[in-house]
Amino acid sequence: MNTQRFISFEGLDYSGKSTQIRLLEKYLTDRGYQVFTIREPGGTTISEKIRDILLDKTHINMTDRCELFLYSAARVQLVKEKIIPLLQKDYFILADRYVDSTTAYQGFGRGLDLNMVEQINQAATFGILPGTTFYLRFAPEQIARRMQKSGRESDRLESAGNAFYRKVFQGYEILAEKNKDRFCVIDANLSIEQIHHIVVKNLIQRTTGKP
Amino acid sequence: MNTQRFISFEGLDYSGKSTQIRLLEKYLTDRGYQVFTIREPGGTTISEKIRDILLDKTHINMTDRCELFLYSAARVQLVKEKIIPLLQKDYFILADRYVDSTTAYQGFGRGLDLNMVEQINQAATFGILPGTTFYLRFAPEQIARRMQKSGRESDRLESAGNAFYRKVFQGYEILAEKNKDRFCVIDANLSIEQIHHIVVKNLIQRTTGKP
Repeated sequence: MNTQRFISFEGLDYSGKSTQIRLLEKYLTDRGYQVFTIREPGGTTISEKIRDILLDKTHINMTDRCELFLYSAARVQLVKEKIIPLLQKDYFILADRYVDSTTAYQGFGRGLDLNMVEQINQAATFGILPGTTFYLRFAPEQIARRMQKSGRESDRLESAGNAFYRKVFQGYEILAEKNKDRFCVIDANLSIEQIHHIVVKNLIQRTTGKP
Repeated sequence: MNTQRFISFEGLDYSGKSTQIRLLEKYLTDRGYQVFTIREPGGTTISEKIRDILLDKTHINMTDRCELFLYSAARVQLVKEKIIPLLQKDYFILADRYVDSTTAYQGFGRGLDLNMVEQINQAATFGILPGTTFYLRFAPEQIARRMQKSGRESDRLESAGNAFYRKVFQGYEILAEKNKDRFCVIDANLSIEQIHHIVVKNLIQRTTGKP
């Protein structure tokens, strides 16, 4: 399967992923491409119900493994119902988080066995990875500031605290290093317009092979 | 961990598991034992919400892997919140289905890769298996008759049909053969009283070592 048009955005919460996805979506649709945007967990009827369980703040005693299985359940449904059929129809798929989030958050962040996480990721994706992953990098210490600024209420995952986010950050760094071909690392402190420009330039290079 | 008091009941739908669990629960509580009965999927707040998604008949397009992950998510929560702490308090745990159901239904029935199922089962149980598994065996052809007789409405899983149940049956047979020490196979066509008698006799033998 050609996954060149499958693009994921990764990074810590408040790194600006959704803003960039909106901009890229507009850029692509303006040029006549069909675009499907997904937000994990979710994107199908079943996955959205699983999302509700995952983000429910009363579930404070949810085990790390339960969380891993629920993300994987939501994801495999999304891959089968949306990602595979839409890639076959030449859509661009823009994913707000995908399998790297599971490795970074549940593997590195929660400290689950990384081999176990990898096996489960493989099962949940049928091995289908994005052609490009834009990783919006910023220091975990900046999260609290951005969180306050946004005025958004934190959900169960976002309440996990700073030490957690430092581990997630380390996870992303290791993933970016290990998957250099797929990862495109962008400084999330750049302006929205600068980041969008890098994203588009990179995508053109990757899809056309031209600089 | 001592799992001698952890007892699961397995078998096809309508094999009489819940009736036997009720009888055994009464037998044990009458003798002063503390007993906790679990029904999979379910048994914790989170697991029951997952159960609702699994048994919802409108979810006809749920993938086999999503089903596997959801069962595992419900189970790991149950193991952590109930099974481990209650075994430590010397409770008897009577389980209406456990990990063998996943192997029989999702592995053999749905045809998922058995190695993948086993890895996920291991992750979902922390490797904790029942001390004894009572397998109530009856031919898959008998299901339809028992289903009609019960007057119960079938759920999404029970609607899967006869060919499916034949594969599940084969799965249970292979599991029983592979786990001879743990499995106790009982003919589900015996009377309720006869089966209860065999269960109790077997349990006394296994827990006291006396015939």
